[in-house]
Amino acid sequence: MAGQLSGKKVAILATDGVERVELEQPRGAVTDAGAEVELLSLHEGEIAARDHDLEEAGTFSVDGLVSDASVDDYDALLLPGGTVNPDKLRMDDDAVGFVREFFESGKPIGSICHGPWTLVEAGVVAGRQLTSWPSVRTDLRNAGATVLDQEVVVDDGLVTSRSPDDLPAFCAKIVEEFAEGRHANRTVEAAAS
Amino acid sequence: MAGQLSGKKVAILATDGVERVELEQPRGAVTDAGAEVELLSLHEGEIAARDHDLEEAGTFSVDGLVSDASVDDYDALLLPGGTVNPDKLRMDDDAVGFVREFFESGKPIGSICHGPWTLVEAGVVAGRQLTSWPSVRTDLRNAGATVLDQEVVVDDGLVTSRSPDDLPAFCAKIVEEFAEGRHANRTVEAAAS
Repeated sequence: MAGQLSGKKVAILATDGVERVELEQPRGAVTDAGAEVELLSLHEGEIAARDHDLEEAGTFSVDGLVSDASVDDYDALLLPGGTVNPDKLRMDDDAVGFVREFFESGKPIGSICHGPWTLVEAGVVAGRQLTSWPSVRTDLRNAGATVLDQEVVVDDGLVTSRSPDDLPAFCAKIVEEFAEGRHANRTVEAAAS
Repeated sequence: MAGQLSGKKVAILATDGVERVELEQPRGAVTDAGAEVELLSLHEGEIAARDHDLEEAGTFSVDGLVSDASVDDYDALLLPGGTVNPDKLRMDDDAVGFVREFFESGKPIGSICHGPWTLVEAGVVAGRQLTSWPSVRTDLRNAGATVLDQEVVVDDGLVTSRSPDDLPAFCAKIVEEFAEGRHANRTVEAAAS
C-alpha cells in the first residue's frame, strides 16, 4: 500500500560484503511505501556489494556513520546479509551497540540471510524465534534462539528470512511490521552462556 | 626441522573464499617438514581464494572431494579461514562429518581465523580452549568453548590461531603437534544447548 510508511525513517546498517539484492530490494520496498531511508555504515564513502558472497556487484553510497547515529532518529532498522558484511559489523562496538539499543527500544527490525549474526553479537536472540541462512542457525541456537525453517518469521516486531529467494515475503512483511511501529512488550533475555 | 613430518599425510579442507595466505603458508610449512598434502573440497577443479575476504587472490587445485575422503588416510587436518570458506563448509554434511570424525580420532588439527566455525558445526568445541578471529569468538563461547586471545592456543592436539598475523607461530606449532601424532585422550563433550 503506497504511503504506508509515510513520515517514517528507516536505517539500513551494512558494510562491505553486503549481498546486493538484500539491500536493494528491501530498500526499494520501504521507499515505495513512503519511507525515508539512510544507509549507516562503518566508514564513509561507498561500501562494496557482492552477489552470492564472492562476485563483485557494485557499491552503495553511505549516508552516515553508525558511530554518529542515534536510535531516536529512526523508526525501523534493516540488517541485510552477505557473509562478510555482518562478520565485520559484529566486531564494531558502535554497530553492535546500535543494534542492541534498537532492539531494546521495541522498534521493528528486519534481517535476512546472514544478517542475524549481528543480533547474536548484540545478545538479543535468546528466547526468540527467528530464521536465517542455514550456516548461521547453529550459532543462533547456541545463543538461545529457536530457529524456524520458514520464508519469513515474525517475533514481536523482529522480521527474519532465510535467503534472497525469500525477498518477496520478507519485503511485504517488513513494510507491514514497520508500519505497525514500536512493540512495547519486547524484552531482552539474558544471553545463553 | 626438515623431515619432521616425513611419511605423514595432511588433509587441508577448504573451499571457495579461503583466505589465500592461510592455506599457502601452513601448506608450505608442513610440506617443508616432509609431509604429503592433499586439498579436499566440496567440488572438483579449483577453489577461488581471497585476500582480506573480498579481494580476488587466485585459485588452488583440488586433490579430492571430502565426500570421497576417509579420515584413516590422513595423519592431520588443517582448516584455514576466510569468512566465506567455513561458512560454506559448515553447511555440507560430508565436510562437517569428516571434521567431527577427525576430531574423535584424536589426530591433530590446526585451524586459524574463521576456520573454527566448522568445529562449532561439528559440535566438538564444548569444554575446549581455543582462539579465532574476533568475529567468531561469541559463537565459540556460545558453543561451550573457552576463548583465549593468544597468537596460538594448543588443547590436546587442537592448534588454533587468530589471524594471518599469527601465521609464523601457527605454522611452527602445527608442525610440532602434527609430528606428535594422535592424542589418544581427546574426548568430545556434549555440545551446549
